[in-house]
Amino acid sequence: MLNIVKIGGNVIDDEPLLAQFLGDFSAVRGHKILVHGGGKLATKLCDALHIPTQMLDGRRVTDAETLKVVSMVYAGWINKSIVAQLYAQGCHAIGLSGADGNAIPAVRRNPVPVDYGFVGDIKPGQINASFIQSLLEQGLVPVFSAITHDAHGSLLNSNADSVASSLAIAMSYLTPTRLIYCFEKNGVLRDPSDENSAIPEITRELYEEYKADGAISGGMIPKVDSAFNAIAFGVKEVIIGHAKSLNKGGGTMIRK
Amino acid sequence: MLNIVKIGGNVIDDEPLLAQFLGDFSAVRGHKILVHGGGKLATKLCDALHIPTQMLDGRRVTDAETLKVVSMVYAGWINKSIVAQLYAQGCHAIGLSGADGNAIPAVRRNPVPVDYGFVGDIKPGQINASFIQSLLEQGLVPVFSAITHDAHGSLLNSNADSVASSLAIAMSYLTPTRLIYCFEKNGVLRDPSDENSAIPEITRELYEEYKADGAISGGMIPKVDSAFNAIAFGVKEVIIGHAKSLNKGGGTMIRK
Repeated sequence: MLNIVKIGGNVIDDEPLLAQFLGDFSAVRGHKILVHGGGKLATKLCDALHIPTQMLDGRRVTDAETLKVVSMVYAGWINKSIVAQLYAQGCHAIGLSGADGNAIPAVRRNPVPVDYGFVGDIKPGQINASFIQSLLEQGLVPVFSAITHDAHGSLLNSNADSVASSLAIAMSYLTPTRLIYCFEKNGVLRDPSDENSAIPEITRELYEEYKADGAISGGMIPKVDSAFNAIAFGVKEVIIGHAKSLNKGGGTMIRK
Repeated sequence: MLNIVKIGGNVIDDEPLLAQFLGDFSAVRGHKILVHGGGKLATKLCDALHIPTQMLDGRRVTDAETLKVVSMVYAGWINKSIVAQLYAQGCHAIGLSGADGNAIPAVRRNPVPVDYGFVGDIKPGQINASFIQSLLEQGLVPVFSAITHDAHGSLLNSNADSVASSLAIAMSYLTPTRLIYCFEKNGVLRDPSDENSAIPEITRELYEEYKADGAISGGMIPKVDSAFNAIAFGVKEVIIGHAKSLNKGGGTMIRK
């Protein structure tokens, strides 16, 4: 089973948690891919450079200067630091953006009705899965930032959750694939105020019920939607869980 | 013949020249590797972030904050922009740092007598040439920034000329290799004030003569030294020439 693990910005920003996570990730057996988000460094750098940060529906509006910053931070410092740390743990990582080997081409989002700038949407069918598979077969562990490209010379800023789920869908045509979202909660919670209320497994029916009664709301909805979408397109299972418990069971499972 | 082409910061900083160069590089036939320097963006970013820039003998002293900046700029924005632009020209590039696939491990320079900080020296014998060869055989074109790692979790800042010559030496054990330094002059000049005085070919004897009479001096000496060193360790030929004339002949040739 290929494991595709996504870590969010909260893990990136927490140095001890990131170090522990990278140790756990190194210990995952078999073929694996890491996708990482960005954390607060890009916003800090934008602030220091007096580039205004504009968020719309949780997505960063990416003008030319912001694209430079996110490319530097995500594909440069964060990606290469993670690769260096993984190598030190015996994990032969290779850090990639979606431009490298044309791994993840994307399409700049339609500027109408809202112009997000250099933001790229990914079609799983266009992912260069055979290239990624060949890296895995060489014993390498691809580590992806969410910087993609339009295949016409421009980099694009994509959403790391979308990179992970698109990769999982694309790779599942070649090999059985599990998608694991690691974040700062113990899973999809029955009671958002109780970390011990992680739901072990969610079916479509339960999901609709919990959405209706308000237990699942806000930012959790797109995550769970993307999990069901991945399953619908061939991914074997999706786990949503805490970055601390990658190899320890727990979290919320979604499967066919 | 494998062509390893190095471009310096002057090319990176000159957008039209860089675009022309990347077009010419895309047209180079057969296996090829690009190594790029950094340009002025790292210094500008350090200035904007109030990180003092300290140069010693032409080498940037790299403290922890500076390492972050050069990793962002070289391995992030510049590397990925070049990759995206090459792909648009039909060149299937893959952007790498020395940490990726442990391609170029380095050793942090001895802090005595001068502490350069996170500066890494490369041993050609430790370069992961078989990994790089496997990428070439997949039809990929590796594009290297001069960010390396110590294989113990830390990134290091290396010299791009050294990355290029070390790569050329390492690859020449596997395949006949040509090293091409592209910069802003027409080659090694007999008369530094006359761009039309490029020496077509330099032998050891001529080199000693021109050094003695002062025609070859300053920053040209380490470049030519590194060329002779590459030849001594198996590289077939080294060309030092203008970034504008990559496929047009010209420049200065050094061979066995």
